[in-house]
Amino acid sequence: MGEFDLIARYFQRPARRAALGVGDDCALLQAASGAQLAISTDMLLEGRHFLSTVDPFKLGHKALAVNLSDLAACGAKPLAFTLALALPRADDAWLAPFSQGLLALADAHDCELIGGDTTQGPLNICITVFGEVPVQNGHSLALLRSGAKAGDELYVSGTLGDARLALEVFRGTLSVPAPMFEAARRRMEMPTPRIALGLALRGIATATIDISDGLLGDLDHILRLSGVGAMVEADLAATLVAARALCATPDLPSGGAITLDQWRAWALAGGDDYELLFTAPPAARDLVAIAASTSQTAVTRIGRIEQQSGLRLIDSEGRDLPSRYSSFDHFA
Amino acid sequence: MGEFDLIARYFQRPARRAALGVGDDCALLQAASGAQLAISTDMLLEGRHFLSTVDPFKLGHKALAVNLSDLAACGAKPLAFTLALALPRADDAWLAPFSQGLLALADAHDCELIGGDTTQGPLNICITVFGEVPVQNGHSLALLRSGAKAGDELYVSGTLGDARLALEVFRGTLSVPAPMFEAARRRMEMPTPRIALGLALRGIATATIDISDGLLGDLDHILRLSGVGAMVEADLAATLVAARALCATPDLPSGGAITLDQWRAWALAGGDDYELLFTAPPAARDLVAIAASTSQTAVTRIGRIEQQSGLRLIDSEGRDLPSRYSSFDHFA
Repeated sequence: MGEFDLIARYFQRPARRAALGVGDDCALLQAASGAQLAISTDMLLEGRHFLSTVDPFKLGHKALAVNLSDLAACGAKPLAFTLALALPRADDAWLAPFSQGLLALADAHDCELIGGDTTQGPLNICITVFGEVPVQNGHSLALLRSGAKAGDELYVSGTLGDARLALEVFRGTLSVPAPMFEAARRRMEMPTPRIALGLALRGIATATIDISDGLLGDLDHILRLSGVGAMVEADLAATLVAARALCATPDLPSGGAITLDQWRAWALAGGDDYELLFTAPPAARDLVAIAASTSQTAVTRIGRIEQQSGLRLIDSEGRDLPSRYSSFDHFA
Repeated sequence: MGEFDLIARYFQRPARRAALGVGDDCALLQAASGAQLAISTDMLLEGRHFLSTVDPFKLGHKALAVNLSDLAACGAKPLAFTLALALPRADDAWLAPFSQGLLALADAHDCELIGGDTTQGPLNICITVFGEVPVQNGHSLALLRSGAKAGDELYVSGTLGDARLALEVFRGTLSVPAPMFEAARRRMEMPTPRIALGLALRGIATATIDISDGLLGDLDHILRLSGVGAMVEADLAATLVAARALCATPDLPSGGAITLDQWRAWALAGGDDYELLFTAPPAARDLVAIAASTSQTAVTRIGRIEQQSGLRLIDSEGRDLPSRYSSFDHFA
């Protein structure tokens, strides 16, 4: 199978929204009149972003999901994406499920594959995604990282830390009961991009980011770009690890051996969560609840923005906790 | 140096045309009212697209040049690009010249770096580039591969085959005098994207492609998408290898040992040329000459489009030549 057969077999479909799709020097895309195009790119490498043993269908899903998550954090509606793929070999047993997982998520979000590149080399998946953000009266409705204000409340969607828990099991540093592992593994391998929530938060959230490197590390981007500080309820965040609920099950005793500090660490610095972390003024509490409800996405208020720079963690009694949870850095 | 320091030091500059550049979840870009966005992505790997010994400044140039070449082939005006970069380590001695070469070419084409991703891994450079194509009276001015008609003439810009000649010297399969090697090596390492010619050919060329895998292989894309055949003057194409002119120099005798068939093969199937291959009706000869002149780009008429499918090669006497020059395929 040659390069062009490979593209035709797995990735080429008739152009829908795009004026021109896969198969020419460029794809041609036109945003709605006056709209801005939101653009993000992510590169996923075997051994760093995913394990070599991952199911290719799930990997196809995840590769696009982490990019859609950036659109969600921007309040952008998905339009299209390009895929550049380095593969050790053109292998049907891998390409068929990979493309199915990728295109199933793409179809679910009406996000069209419009172009790409394939080459032989160490497995590397680079996706660039395009979304649309309306501009009203000259004002972009994009959600940015830079708009948080002192007094705003801090929210996070969904669950936290499960991907990291699953990774630790894969690494062999942790052993948990099978049902807990399976629940966590699903969060690691099949993250849900919070597109509907991002769209619902337009005009409500003052700052938004998606959590890829860990909650505190990504919150730090909001704090720096907004010129503010924050208080985070660490023990409340720690309750958002979905796998933890299974610890209460009497027949899963080993989960109980995990310390509260460990749950905090996974929730606050686990990484790979792809949840939205956002701020909104107290007066917008009802609007946030409506956005959560219409997007069918759980949202938890876990802290607030403060005038003084820096980050404060408190426990369930309101006592200060040392902040020693560090995020993932690809070059640290 | 961490990931975010690396981005800030080498790649982050204030947004110019983009509404939002490097540093948020997405970049925000707005094309001119009614214009289409032309989008292309290319992934470059060490050992496959460039040698590990290449000067990082030249590599930065080439990584963007091959993407701009796709915009040129589409008749698109460069706007912006994203860069995803996998690096074995954050090394100033590599990153500083790489980013300088990349941004120097970007500045020359007023093409803004608006976002990206960095991670640790085997060296891999994935660029996605955005250009603008006007739409007039509902008709896109994009140059496509699909519009060639029987009777059209076939043109190619610049020179052919030099990159391949240089590659063969690097591979040790060929030895040529130093000046010939240096000339060819420059074409391999610092290709010139034919942006000005692409813009000048809007409304003139009936089909256009850029030559990345070899003239005949890329011509085949035009033929298939246009439903036509072609005749190519192989010996005329063979005169377009720039290094060949140096063979006539009396003090460079060893170049003369290269056979005519070898020059033909490099010109027709060398790859890595990044020249424009395009078609235009005979009545547009003067317009093509003006486009070449205004864009200060040499253009040579090397064949014509025919009704009957397939590709015919002829020599300088007009005799048919066997067509056994095969293009580069990443998975063949």
